[in-house]
Formats: sequence, C-alpha cells, structure tokens
Amino acid sequence: MAAPDAARLRSRRTRLRALADGEGLGAMLITAPANIRWLTGFTGSYGALVQLPGRDVLITDGRYRDQAGWQAPGVEVEVAPADRIGAAAALLEPEVTETRPAGFEPSGLLWSEGDRLRELVGAATPAPALVEELREVKDDTELASIRAAARAGMDALDAVLPALAPGVTELEVARRLELAMRDAGAEGVAFDSIVAFGPNAAEPHHLPTSRALARGDLVKLDFGAAVDGYRSDMTRTVVLGPASARQREVYEVVRAAQAAGLATLRDGVTGGEIDAACRDLITAAGLGEAFSHPTGHGVGLEIHEAPRVRARAGGSIAAGTPLTVEPGVYIPGFGGVRIEDLAVVAPDGHELLTTTTKDLLEL
Amino acid sequence: MAAPDAARLRSRRTRLRALADGEGLGAMLITAPANIRWLTGFTGSYGALVQLPGRDVLITDGRYRDQAGWQAPGVEVEVAPADRIGAAAALLEPEVTETRPAGFEPSGLLWSEGDRLRELVGAATPAPALVEELREVKDDTELASIRAAARAGMDALDAVLPALAPGVTELEVARRLELAMRDAGAEGVAFDSIVAFGPNAAEPHHLPTSRALARGDLVKLDFGAAVDGYRSDMTRTVVLGPASARQREVYEVVRAAQAAGLATLRDGVTGGEIDAACRDLITAAGLGEAFSHPTGHGVGLEIHEAPRVRARAGGSIAAGTPLTVEPGVYIPGFGGVRIEDLAVVAPDGHELLTTTTKDLLEL
Repeated sequence: MAAPDAARLRSRRTRLRALADGEGLGAMLITAPANIRWLTGFTGSYGALVQLPGRDVLITDGRYRDQAGWQAPGVEVEVAPADRIGAAAALLEPEVTETRPAGFEPSGLLWSEGDRLRELVGAATPAPALVEELREVKDDTELASIRAAARAGMDALDAVLPALAPGVTELEVARRLELAMRDAGAEGVAFDSIVAFGPNAAEPHHLPTSRALARGDLVKLDFGAAVDGYRSDMTRTVVLGPASARQREVYEVVRAAQAAGLATLRDGVTGGEIDAACRDLITAAGLGEAFSHPTGHGVGLEIHEAPRVRARAGGSIAAGTPLTVEPGVYIPGFGGVRIEDLAVVAPDGHELLTTTTKDLLEL
Repeated sequence: MAAPDAARLRSRRTRLRALADGEGLGAMLITAPANIRWLTGFTGSYGALVQLPGRDVLITDGRYRDQAGWQAPGVEVEVAPADRIGAAAALLEPEVTETRPAGFEPSGLLWSEGDRLRELVGAATPAPALVEELREVKDDTELASIRAAARAGMDALDAVLPALAPGVTELEVARRLELAMRDAGAEGVAFDSIVAFGPNAAEPHHLPTSRALARGDLVKLDFGAAVDGYRSDMTRTVVLGPASARQREVYEVVRAAQAAGLATLRDGVTGGEIDAACRDLITAAGLGEAFSHPTGHGVGLEIHEAPRVRARAGGSIAAGTPLTVEPGVYIPGFGGVRIEDLAVVAPDGHELLTTTTKDLLEL
C-alpha cells in the first residue's frame, strides 16, 4: 500500500489521545486490526498499540519487526513474541490509576485477552468505540482509495456481464468477478462475492454454488474490491432473458426504494432516516416482511463499519462518510432483488461512487 | 463443500457433550467459527451453537436461515438477528446452575460478548479448548481434503516455478500461485501467500511487494490451498541462478534440521521433541538466533490450530494429526531459508503430504 504520511498518522493519534482524555482514560490499548492500521499504518496480523502519555508503542512479534519499522513512522516498536497482552500490560500498569484507568477495546480483543489484561492491570476498563468514531469521516487520501476500489468493482462487472449465459455456474461467475477486479487494479476482494441465480437470490447472503444459470433467472451480484486496504461494495440484480411482469414489478419497488434512500443523504442525516426512506416504500408495496436486513453500513478499512444505517439509528452522519444504501426484497421460490450503491455523504447530498446503471438489464 | 454426513457430525457433538460433562459443565456455548463448522457443518459467518441436555441449537441470522437448514443436519436452527449472545443466553440460563455452569469459549468470542453473556447468565464460565482438542486427530474424510489441498499447492508450485525469471515481482508470483492453486482444484488460498526475494527473505512473514527478482536472489515461497474448508501449508526456498557457497551452506543446515524434525514424528511425539530436533541442529551450526519462530503447528479447518509444535510443548500428539515442520534461518541483508512440509503423524512415522523435492533448486 501507499504509506500514509507520518504527519497524517500522527494527527490521528493526537485526536484519539484527546478523545480518550475526555473520557477520563489515562492510557489506551488498541487491538482491533483496522484501528491499529488507521492509527499507525501497520498492516501485520499481530499487534497492539499502547497509547501512553507522550508515547505511542506498537507491540508486534518477530515476524513483523522490520515491517513495523517502515510501515509505522513515529511510533516505538516493541517485539513481544506471542504475548501482546502481557507486553501491553507491562507498559500500562505503571501509568494508570483507578481514576485514570487504561481503556481497552471490548470488541477488539478476545474474552481471554481481556480477562488476562484485567488480571495484570488493576485499572483497565472497556472504552467506547473512539477509533471507530474517528474513522467514520474519511480524508481525501482515503476517499481516493475507496473511489478506486469502486471503479475496480464497476469495471469487473462490465467485464463479467457478457459471461452471464445459460449454463455458467455461480462459482464461475464469482471467480471471474474476482479476477476481473484484480485485473482492474484491486489488491483483492473486499469480501467473498455473493452470486445468486434464480431461487437462490431469495437468500440475502447466498454463497456461490455450482447451480447453472437458466433463462428467466434473476441474477444477484454483490461484490467489492480492496485498494490500499479500503473497500468498495455494490449489488446489481439483472435477469437472463426478458423479465417477467412480477420480476419487473419487484425490481421497480426496490429501485424506487433505493433512490429514496440515496435522496435522503446530506450532512447530518441519520441512519434511521435513510432506512425509513427505503423501508417505507417497500412496506407500502406490501413487501415489508421481505426486506429482512438493515439498509446499509459504513465502508472503509472494514467492509462493515460505522455508521449504522438501520431502523432507529440515531447518530447524525457527517459529510465525508462513505456508506451503502442497499434495500432488497427476498421471496422464497421467486428469488430476490437487491440494489446497492456506495456513496459518500456530502454537505447537501452525496457523491455516488457506483455509477453502473440501475435500469433492469435483460441479458 | 461436500456436506459431511449427519452421523459423523452427530458423533462429534456426542463426544463434545461427554467431554463437557466430564468438566462439570451443564451446557456449552460454541462460538469459534471453525468449531461450529466442525460440529454442525454450518459455514456461515454468523452463528453460535448451544449444546443443552438433549438438544443442539444453532443460532444464526436471517441471511443464513436456509443455509443452516441444509448444511447442519440434526440440529435445531434458531434465527436471532444480530444478537447471538442474547439468544444463546435465553437458552442457557434455565439449564445451568452454579455447580453445573455453562461453558463458553474464552478465545472464541469477543470480550464484549463474554461480558454480556456473564451479565445474562449467572453461571457461565470459561471452558477449556475442548473442541480444539477433539479436532486435532482428523478422520479419513478430513485427511482426504487436506491431501487434496496439499496436492493443489504442489501443482501450483510446479506451474509457477518457470515464471521465476529476472524482473518478475513478488506480487506477480503471489498472484500466479493463487490462480494456479484454484486451477488445481482449490476453492481458495489457505492464507495470504508469502513470496520473498533476496534480502526480503530475511523476514519470516514478508508480504509480497513490487520488488523484482534478480539473479542470485533466494526465493522463499510459503503458501497453501483450501479444499472443503481444510488447509494445506508448505514452504520451499530456491535460488535464481547458481547458489553461492553461503546460500548453499545455510540451505543445507535448514534442510538437515527439517529432516531431523520429520524423523521424530510418530504416535505420541511431543511438539517440544519436534522443535528440539530442528533447533538443536541449527544451533549447532551457530545459527540458533536466526531461527526466530516456532517449528510448526497443526493444520485443519484453520491454518494454525492445535497441536503446538514449539519449544517445551508437552502434550503427546496422536497418529492422524496433520502438522507442519518448518525450521528457518533469517539473516538480515543475506536473506532467509525456510523449508516446510505438511505431514500426518502415523503410528510409527508419518505420511508426507508435500512431496515436492527439497533439493536446492537453482533456476
């Protein structure tokens, strides 16, 4: 990956320090991999970042000693084979008190690790999701990576649509999508692609199988690319051959709902508002029960990250936040339709990153 | 994947029930994905298995309702959107007591999840790694998958060796390896391939970069395939052009150490014995400090699983256990050599799954 510059990383750590201080924490232990990467640039699979007054220490193991040195400018690197919690505890214990405890990430470590930490550090407490909060709004460099990932996804879809012919299997299409994303410049996939034909499209999260494509099948493709660690995510549903009246009817309900969701985006929108805009239209069409998942999610270093885009999600979403809008309708036996875009919330609207047509394609 | 038959899965759950009973547990909560898969066949990314007296309940969310039904024969499926812990707690609480508490997997859930479980279920306690222990020895079906994965890895290496020519990059080689494993029948990679040229080979766990291959470079390739969820793992180190005297010298030390490690394998061997056999030879050659990682690890549904193959690991390893033997020597500036085989412990020796030559190839 392009190494984020040292000043940008340092500024992120400074912002975290201020937030943690405001929470009454005397130190922070960061263990969620995406949070470590965002704060330091380090991408190794084993690490912990200890934020002490005036010092940032990245703990890793011997495999990553050199990598940590060049990826993570401005932090001390400490090597602790197979015991990141023990090493972190030794740094934290002298620095914290009951009134200024160490904060740890309750969803960033295993129960066994948290248990050990609390044995070793008297004053350790679960912290709020401070780094996740900081990560919501992306900077220009992050947005450039996400745009590139979205572009790779769209290019891959263009490359793969001609392969949607009778007899091709879901697994083959998934594989072609993945190769095409890499050909388009992605370092890999953002997540395991969902490719669902016919009745399989009624499963929102169907895994590709050896089912062969048949005329009349709905084809649901949900996939994304990764560029510099940042993800994209999009879904399109097409039909092999002329759409039936019912297919078109369901498709247009979802399409209208998705457009209504996108139309709510602006600085300050809430996840609940976006969700309601989509859900109300689908419910009005009598299909509310068939829209069985949340409307969307934030996207960044993780494919699902803050903010939440679901019923009653209340926090306001700021300009610069990438998120998905992806209503769907799933009907056993019939199949399903989902349309998903990745968009960045803007002051008065949004920037649409996945600009592939949403007209119902009849291949 | 090929669906494991219902009787085999049921027998696994029966064995777990007996182990848990022996530990004084009134019920078990299984949350580690590989453990859920091994016990039920379910491969979805969101689930929990609750083992109550006389009932096995698989909790998942709406995305996986159908999949759970066909993948997991003989268990009840309960759908609990986004709250596997809450749903599990509701099942567990009436069934457990202080003297027969519910066991949970301390390394199979997040600290936040364990914290919530212990709020909801008065009698919940961290359990030993019972499923991991049961998973160590593989049955014939599992071994067939691991053999197929090892074969896909070897075929891929054969396909990629001719591409090792001046100018090719680590990233290109990693990508070719991955494609070749899929062409050879793998469903995917077992882990991100390690491809390291020249001085980069001094990093045990180097991530592929755009470094171009040059004459005289050591080339370290560590990769594996996945078949039906089961993994393979192998490392070979070759040289582009004639090996220098020093390259050959280091190579032969590692080769002899690796052979010594393999020679210890038999029913009842300990991880410590395997490690010592490798490490003693490398230490005797004056390179002990340069062998900076454990000697190996078990392999199965996870790329690193029980048993441990490292200094002082004491538990005896039974026939039918696949593991790696992978000593290495890493010298900054010079590069590194690692040779890794995947082998299955047998009553009086081992079955070698990665039979690719260990002669030093000069390409």
